[in-house]
Amino acid sequence: MIKVGIVGGTGYTGVELLRLLAQHPQAEVAVITSRSEAGVAVADMYPNLRGHYDGLAFSVPDSKALGACDVVFFATPHGVAHALAGELLAAGTKVIDLSADFRLQDATEWGKWYGQPHGAPELLKDAVYGLPEVNREKIRQARLIAVPGCYPTATQLGFLPLLEAGLADPSRLIADCKSGVSGAGRGAAVGSLFCEAGESMKAYAVKGHRHLPEISQGLRLAAGKDIGLTFVPHLTPMIRGIHATLYANVVDTSVDLQALFEKRYADEPFVDVMPAGSHPETRSVRGANVCRIAVHRPQGGDLVVVLSVIDNLVKGASGQAVQNLNILFGLDERMGLSHAGLLP
Amino acid sequence: MIKVGIVGGTGYTGVELLRLLAQHPQAEVAVITSRSEAGVAVADMYPNLRGHYDGLAFSVPDSKALGACDVVFFATPHGVAHALAGELLAAGTKVIDLSADFRLQDATEWGKWYGQPHGAPELLKDAVYGLPEVNREKIRQARLIAVPGCYPTATQLGFLPLLEAGLADPSRLIADCKSGVSGAGRGAAVGSLFCEAGESMKAYAVKGHRHLPEISQGLRLAAGKDIGLTFVPHLTPMIRGIHATLYANVVDTSVDLQALFEKRYADEPFVDVMPAGSHPETRSVRGANVCRIAVHRPQGGDLVVVLSVIDNLVKGASGQAVQNLNILFGLDERMGLSHAGLLP
Amino acid sequence: MIKVGIVGGTGYTGVELLRLLAQHPQAEVAVITSRSEAGVAVADMYPNLRGHYDGLAFSVPDSKALGACDVVFFATPHGVAHALAGELLAAGTKVIDLSADFRLQDATEWGKWYGQPHGAPELLKDAVYGLPEVNREKIRQARLIAVPGCYPTATQLGFLPLLEAGLADPSRLIADCKSGVSGAGRGAAVGSLFCEAGESMKAYAVKGHRHLPEISQGLRLAAGKDIGLTFVPHLTPMIRGIHATLYANVVDTSVDLQALFEKRYADEPFVDVMPAGSHPETRSVRGANVCRIAVHRPQGGDLVVVLSVIDNLVKGASGQAVQNLNILFGLDERMGLSHAGLLP
Amino acid sequence: MIKVGIVGGTGYTGVELLRLLAQHPQAEVAVITSRSEAGVAVADMYPNLRGHYDGLAFSVPDSKALGACDVVFFATPHGVAHALAGELLAAGTKVIDLSADFRLQDATEWGKWYGQPHGAPELLKDAVYGLPEVNREKIRQARLIAVPGCYPTATQLGFLPLLEAGLADPSRLIADCKSGVSGAGRGAAVGSLFCEAGESMKAYAVKGHRHLPEISQGLRLAAGKDIGLTFVPHLTPMIRGIHATLYANVVDTSVDLQALFEKRYADEPFVDVMPAGSHPETRSVRGANVCRIAVHRPQGGDLVVVLSVIDNLVKGASGQAVQNLNILFGLDERMGLSHAGLLP
Repeated sequence: MIKVGIVGGTGYTGVELLRLLAQHPQAEVAVITSRSEAGVAVADMYPNLRGHYDGLAFSVPDSKALGACDVVFFATPHGVAHALAGELLAAGTKVIDLSADFRLQDATEWGKWYGQPHGAPELLKDAVYGLPEVNREKIRQARLIAVPGCYPTATQLGFLPLLEAGLADPSRLIADCKSGVSGAGRGAAVGSLFCEAGESMKAYAVKGHRHLPEISQGLRLAAGKDIGLTFVPHLTPMIRGIHATLYANVVDTSVDLQALFEKRYADEPFVDVMPAGSHPETRSVRGANVCRIAVHRPQGGDLVVVLSVIDNLVKGASGQAVQNLNILFGLDERMGLSHAGLLP
Repeated sequence: MIKVGIVGGTGYTGVELLRLLAQHPQAEVAVITSRSEAGVAVADMYPNLRGHYDGLAFSVPDSKALGACDVVFFATPHGVAHALAGELLAAGTKVIDLSADFRLQDATEWGKWYGQPHGAPELLKDAVYGLPEVNREKIRQARLIAVPGCYPTATQLGFLPLLEAGLADPSRLIADCKSGVSGAGRGAAVGSLFCEAGESMKAYAVKGHRHLPEISQGLRLAAGKDIGLTFVPHLTPMIRGIHATLYANVVDTSVDLQALFEKRYADEPFVDVMPAGSHPETRSVRGANVCRIAVHRPQGGDLVVVLSVIDNLVKGASGQAVQNLNILFGLDERMGLSHAGLLP
Repeated sequence: MIKVGIVGGTGYTGVELLRLLAQHPQAEVAVITSRSEAGVAVADMYPNLRGHYDGLAFSVPDSKALGACDVVFFATPHGVAHALAGELLAAGTKVIDLSADFRLQDATEWGKWYGQPHGAPELLKDAVYGLPEVNREKIRQARLIAVPGCYPTATQLGFLPLLEAGLADPSRLIADCKSGVSGAGRGAAVGSLFCEAGESMKAYAVKGHRHLPEISQGLRLAAGKDIGLTFVPHLTPMIRGIHATLYANVVDTSVDLQALFEKRYADEPFVDVMPAGSHPETRSVRGANVCRIAVHRPQGGDLVVVLSVIDNLVKGASGQAVQNLNILFGLDERMGLSHAGLLP
Repeated sequence: MIKVGIVGGTGYTGVELLRLLAQHPQAEVAVITSRSEAGVAVADMYPNLRGHYDGLAFSVPDSKALGACDVVFFATPHGVAHALAGELLAAGTKVIDLSADFRLQDATEWGKWYGQPHGAPELLKDAVYGLPEVNREKIRQARLIAVPGCYPTATQLGFLPLLEAGLADPSRLIADCKSGVSGAGRGAAVGSLFCEAGESMKAYAVKGHRHLPEISQGLRLAAGKDIGLTFVPHLTPMIRGIHATLYANVVDTSVDLQALFEKRYADEPFVDVMPAGSHPETRSVRGANVCRIAVHRPQGGDLVVVLSVIDNLVKGASGQAVQNLNILFGLDERMGLSHAGLLP
């Protein structure tokens, strides 16, 4: 059994990680930390887990206990993994970070977007961006994994086939993304109240969202050149789900895009290219570690529309983290992740 | 008092029309028709109207009773106004059609999108497209008004200032639109069930939606030349509201877009240009006859993002119909429409 | 024009009061206070009010400015009205308190439920419980009005006809109540987050809710004797609305309950007894100052089931406050409150 | 592997059964029938199942194919199992019926509530009511199982400890139940539309709901005498979940109810008695085969309030059906049902 530690398990990615690991035959949660909830049983905080983690309680972060784990997940706000990852890595513990701390390769860029200096630039050379569909081999060898953000996962998986094939004009990409409210976390913010976010739709952070540089970095690598991206996130009145609607101009309209996408993801266990003409619904992936994609070329023009949906807490966070765990430890990549989405 | 008839008042635009007219000091609903509900009191079908329309019941459509009205609203599926409008106009009754029957000036185009021949092409020369922000003077003189669709209202109002000023490249406009479920009407369709449309987001009709030619027609007129538009509608898990996120390349980045928009709508009672940097929420217009707009140029590039929100049943349908009524009968355009949105 | 002051207008009852007063032909908001938002324009905080309160901004509470008003509404947490009401009353300003401060006649009981001593027991003799259906004449003469809570309004209006007629066994009354989330206010609490309160139902405060003594006081007065009440509130995944399902044993099954209820409320402008066999929906009163009631006796037994619905922010708070204003100032009780509910 | 057939798998209990069986290590779906969808691949209808049932398509009901299965589930409207069960049983196939066809032991009573004569009264002697917490031993020996309804499951599990112990006055039991909309099925009914059922709460069928006789039958057996039950179902704006709030008078207030409930369900894998003072949320069981219960005695009176929550599609239907399957075939009762609920 792989001995797992979790730092900061009281948020939504934390409880989702616990839900997924409860079904994982090769992983066992040994430690879960939370300063604010230290001493509270996990199942008292999350009644859906009653019967699954008897005896497991939140504890004050303790590097010794965490260092005794085979792997530690960070389900924390940014900055925390910066402070703790080095010590854990030194102890031989692998780190899978669900926060933004190691997603950007450029520490200066990170500092600009997160409003504070990068806390562990010396670790960046070890950090592998944990998008298995791009970096599977690197993940296998890694000791520090930066799990991609939710918007970046849906957006990159949708654009990748076009950019890798050099088919899209990289200078004017648009990602119009819609997220469920759980993407905002479990913090008690007015904007996330039922009565504020319910029965309404709005865009936010049009000026610039922290996921923009992360997406740009990934798309640049895929395109092999600079890209221009406009990213507009929207808050949608649902709990889970991201729907990315992606726009790109194709430079060659004779290419069979459906075939291109199907080929690109033929061997991917968690990317599902739907039949031509499909409109994937976020609910089709609720609770499941799947990205479903459809590609359209409306009115036969040169503008391609890609629809890409994920559950932001699963393929967009905790499920992808477990997928990385599986790769990292040489397990079947599907282990603990093979259940179907909850519909309706 | 203006004597009002309503054809087909059992759907959502019908009940919304009744709600608004109940507060209108100069209009009185004399006749409301529905074949399926003939004999049923309006307030029995719509309990929110109890106490407001005592004695008013749905009746079988009867051209004599309707022809005795000063004005008749059609809140019907397409095709019905084609069949009845001519006779009413001949009787001197004005017609305000909330359906799609007279929105397209080109009868052949109409037939292509609606899958049946246009039923009254001879009336098209009289039909005025009822977008007051564009056609106020023509509306004043009209006898047949085609009330714009919900997506077309939000989209046109958002693009107009750019196109009229010749500032946007008209060849690559994108309208990524999100609608509440009431846009699908009150028909008993599986796709509109609470358990199908709830807690989920999806695009639909990416191949081509019936509002596409209507929007294109309006934008072409505004631009004074051909335009290229990609329109992707999405179903959002909320009852009311449309959020249009519009993308256009500007040909001159030195123009003050905020000033442009504010000037364009300075005298418009129902278009609210929000302060620079705003993100309008659909709930801010819930139940109100208002379109709120914000204009952004992210990262200072040449791509402009316009955010435009309406209540699809009000400014996107019944409220706009009443606004047309007011103009048509020389009343204060705000009459019966001055209430604030319901928030939260 | 009646010069209105509002203390603490940043919560949901505050914005609802503003929405309703914007339509009121005889009232004008002169002052609105908020320590935290002082200096912020009302319309900047609540975009639905843009165009309705140009120039009105939140200000620091100032007894002189408030004392210059004809009437001051308190839309505050408990305790605030205790501190300020006395001074305002002394200045000749009338007070309409939407908080719980003056609802209970017994200061000791108040202290027990609210965990602090009553701050103005000397004013209790002047406080009139603002349920017009019971206290209309007293309200007319009052200078200090305690607007009933949301649960108490729905519950009392449902039980009153039975208790006043001596028909119900007062010793075992049950109120199973379901509330929308706006009842919990606009405070940033985890339990009110979209992702916590959405797609779920739960009871809360079964041990004892603060509205219990208020309801009991009202029912005791109606019955003319002690009563026994079990009150179980539930949190429902909707923004607005209370649905009270009330159970009582009737001592005489020969009475025509439908007639009893219709007679009791025949002259009430804001209580709507629905036809026998009805099931009122909360949405039928969304945004409207109406309580709709239906009375059932399932299987012809002696247990009566009363269904009573209100919008918690309107008839359960701000609408009822305006109704009290109208009575207090000798206006038509319906003034500014006659609009229909928003459905769908 | 147990060879499974499903009749009528296009509704919500059908897709849920497929979701659960996809994770079941000992069951394999060999046949799934639907007249209306014959020829359609299961995964085309339910995209959440893509990758799980490759090659499985709906077929026209065929007793030979079904009779070749070890067990056949009916996920059909009432009446269908009446027509087909006999033949299957004769072929040696076991039948697990999720419909109401065999839940009532009294065929006349059945006919009264379902408006048609019972279609297979001769099979009633073989039918076992599939509530494992009551009938586990009978289920083990059964060949025809009537899976309990959703309301009946939540209600019976909540009342059973009180009635079996003779602690509750059986003559005045009240079940105030709140259901998510999926309980109404996937039929295209106006009342189940997003815009009709959303943002609203209502009671329905107060006069008499079809689950009333089923609940009464079970409670009568538990009490060993006649009972009097008032059952008021409510429609709640959520997709899944039932919250039963149960009221009963206890005849002895000295009994430790918490201990009573804990003892009653100590060995039950799928009934979770929560700590004293708890308020179970329906979301804590979303997607999980669990009933969570809390018992309260507010203000120390003799009225007991039991809170009982389930997912109507799991413990209230398809999960319970799989639990019956496990018992019937001598498997671990938890097989395929051990996953945690999806929260948030």
